[in-house]
Amino acid sequence: MPVMMTAQELNDFMGQVFQQVADDFNVDHVGEGEVTMRLLVSDKHLRPGGTVSGPSMFGLADVAAYIVTLSQIGPQALAVTTNCSIDFMRKPAADVPLIAKARLLKLGKQLSVTDVLLYSEGMDAPVARASLTYAIPPRPIG
Amino acid sequence: MPVMMTAQELNDFMGQVFQQVADDFNVDHVGEGEVTMRLLVSDKHLRPGGTVSGPSMFGLADVAAYIVTLSQIGPQALAVTTNCSIDFMRKPAADVPLIAKARLLKLGKQLSVTDVLLYSEGMDAPVARASLTYAIPPRPIG
Amino acid sequence: MPVMMTAQELNDFMGQVFQQVADDFNVDHVGEGEVTMRLLVSDKHLRPGGTVSGPSMFGLADVAAYIVTLSQIGPQALAVTTNCSIDFMRKPAADVPLIAKARLLKLGKQLSVTDVLLYSEGMDAPVARASLTYAIPPRPIG
Amino acid sequence: MPVMMTAQELNDFMGQVFQQVADDFNVDHVGEGEVTMRLLVSDKHLRPGGTVSGPSMFGLADVAAYIVTLSQIGPQALAVTTNCSIDFMRKPAADVPLIAKARLLKLGKQLSVTDVLLYSEGMDAPVARASLTYAIPPRPIG
Repeated sequence: MPVMMTAQELNDFMGQVFQQVADDFNVDHVGEGEVTMRLLVSDKHLRPGGTVSGPSMFGLADVAAYIVTLSQIGPQALAVTTNCSIDFMRKPAADVPLIAKARLLKLGKQLSVTDVLLYSEGMDAPVARASLTYAIPPRPIG
Repeated sequence: MPVMMTAQELNDFMGQVFQQVADDFNVDHVGEGEVTMRLLVSDKHLRPGGTVSGPSMFGLADVAAYIVTLSQIGPQALAVTTNCSIDFMRKPAADVPLIAKARLLKLGKQLSVTDVLLYSEGMDAPVARASLTYAIPPRPIG
Repeated sequence: MPVMMTAQELNDFMGQVFQQVADDFNVDHVGEGEVTMRLLVSDKHLRPGGTVSGPSMFGLADVAAYIVTLSQIGPQALAVTTNCSIDFMRKPAADVPLIAKARLLKLGKQLSVTDVLLYSEGMDAPVARASLTYAIPPRPIG
Repeated sequence: MPVMMTAQELNDFMGQVFQQVADDFNVDHVGEGEVTMRLLVSDKHLRPGGTVSGPSMFGLADVAAYIVTLSQIGPQALAVTTNCSIDFMRKPAADVPLIAKARLLKLGKQLSVTDVLLYSEGMDAPVARASLTYAIPPRPIG
């Protein structure tokens, strides 16, 4: 499927619909069914011991799945997460951005399914993996 | 298994190890393998449209699984989440606390498994369900 | 919601739509949003070491989620599993039936979400837990 | 990490430890942290409507995660699945083998985490995705 929104359009859309947190995220690259984006890690995302909190990792995976879905269907603020499975595999670094590589595995009429790998920037091994299902509101025909 | 920490002790321990977020949470009740706790919902937990954010719901489920595990093994700051599966089922209310009812299903030497149901206070139907696995650090014998 | 099919009707329906495996299962009890059913464990369900195989446990959880969904919407052969998360917690016994206690947490227009606990008959601690989402085909109105 | 078992050694090991079902599976290829294997679909794996059953898909994903773990640690019959999350995305074809592409994301001292994509042979889009955690028994040092 062709890409329907550019990285810039997705960043702008995030700024409109997620005002409270949009400054924490940036869409770096959009490909066909693929998005790379980042969490700009700051104090509010950290836990004692110098690591990124679980909710911050979940939040990045969740936004990445939303963004890669929108990149293929256009701006649909009302898509909502219905399920997430996440494995925390390694301790993320506290002082670098967290990178999400999201891949859309299915885009149906009612549901999308996305795989996400999270990395601390500059590290080869992923810190977490997640898969997320979004429910997509009915779309107008044509 | 007998309860090893009271609600007060668990609240105090959260204040020590999760300083940044401990004020958001409160342990209400501890039973045998069961904990009820709450997220005191405030602006930072909300999303446009008047609902609680996904990361906030995940965060409450995650803390509740941690707390019910500690209630049975004592204070072990180093227990870490290895897996979470969460289903978002209904839209939470923005203006009431979010309640977690956590039930410990397994407490092994290396892993605990917990089921959590999340409710908007005063509502009968759960807004989300989650199951979480914690890896438990080796414990001294005796 | 009221129950729309009895245990007998559900057993009969399984016999029609799952001819190949229906004899392995029995619906014991149907309540409001709750079903208890069993897998009659035989050689084909076992693994060396005297335990029930993972696919057999998955299969029972999957059928139980289907049956508890049908108990509330009536016979809909076309409901399909979209997601399952399952935790294997203890080794099931090889020589007793495996019991599933399924509880419907959500019944929406398009999706149902069910929690299932699996037990070896006669044991108190669950051997596995699962949560399953079913996609429900559009239903005629009225 | 170097590969410790060849495809032939893994097939032979399956034949020893999973006598009942080993003939249904074949390891096609082993790479560094990657395995491709197949389920030889036959009548017992089918459901009415001409599709592969959920337990058969789960079973293939489960075996593939086991095999890719063993390919890196050597023959350890006692590794056991502790968690699986699986998304069923498309209807598999009944008349072709089901292919699993498994990728080891983490190999720790106590746990491995594997991602699996399932395909009907000859189709581009995956029919299912799964992630599985295996608990690994303590290994002798050196």
